[in-house]
Parts: sequence; C-alpha cells; structure tokens
Amino acid sequence: MSEQEDKMKISVEIYNRTYTIVGSEPKEQVEQVAQLVNKKMEDIHDANKHLDTTKLAVLTAVNTMNDYVKLKEEYNELLQLIEEDK
Amino acid sequence: MSEQEDKMKISVEIYNRTYTIVGSEPKEQVEQVAQLVNKKMEDIHDANKHLDTTKLAVLTAVNTMNDYVKLKEEYNELLQLIEEDK
Repeated sequence: MSEQEDKMKISVEIYNRTYTIVGSEPKEQVEQVAQLVNKKMEDIHDANKHLDTTKLAVLTAVNTMNDYVKLKEEYNELLQLIEEDK
Repeated sequence: MSEQEDKMKISVEIYNRTYTIVGSEPKEQVEQVAQLVNKKMEDIHDANKHLDTTKLAVLTAVNTMNDYVKLKEEYNELLQLIEEDK
C-alpha cells in the first residue's frame, strides 16, 4: 500500500452477513471487534428470541455504547487521580 | 419500586423505532446512550446512503465496539502507569 493510501478494506462476517469495514485499524483488531459484536448479538438473541435482526443490532449498539460511556467515566476518574498525584 | 426489583424498563426511540431497555442504569444515562447510538447511525447513514437499517445498525455496533476496545487499551495503560508509580 502506498503512503497516501492508509485506509484498508477488510471483510468480516457478522450474523451471517458480510461487511466491508474501511479504516486504518489493523486487520486483527477489526476481526476481533467483529467477533465481539457477533457474540453480543448472539447473547442478546438468546435472551430475546423474538427480536428481528435490526432490533438485535441496535440493542447490541446500545449495550456497547453503555459499556463505553461507563468505561469513559472510569477512565476520566483515573486521569484525575494521576493529575492530583502530580 | 421495591428493593428486590432494581431493574427498570425505559423506553427510548432510536432511528424511528421504540426500544424498551431493561437494566439498572439511571434513566438519564439510558437516554444519553440512545441519543449517542442514534447520532452514530445517522452519521454512518450520511456517509453510506445505500445501507439498509440492519447493516447500518451492525456497523454502528462495530464502530462503537472499536471505540470501546481502543479506550480499554488506553485505560489499561493508565492503570499500568499508576501501578508503576507506586
């Protein structure tokens, strides 16, 4: 790949459909992320078998975003601790 | 609500559909998370107008999971810094 072209296309399978992910993340990371999303969709499906795939995917996004927001709070608390320690 | 029943049902609207979120998170947090997911779906739609809603939702989940994984790495690095400093 040329220096100008640092975006890559990576194909992953999630919930029986193929997705082309465009970005600058390493292939291994994209594949790991896809597996995590697939696993979370399966877990939510197991707990709510009546959900269609769109609702399942939206709830997976909500669930992950909630984890992100909580981790971000913890991250900011850690940062503050480090600042106070200086 | 009784002490035994600390799980709440909160209704939110994401991408023109209503979702009932069951959990112990505060209402404000659930609504904030739903807004963030809705915003990310709109952004991905703006960049890829041909995507159907399911693909859009899955890509939103992938995008959010990627942010989570990266933040988790940074969080662990901070933790390690604090440990080394002790």
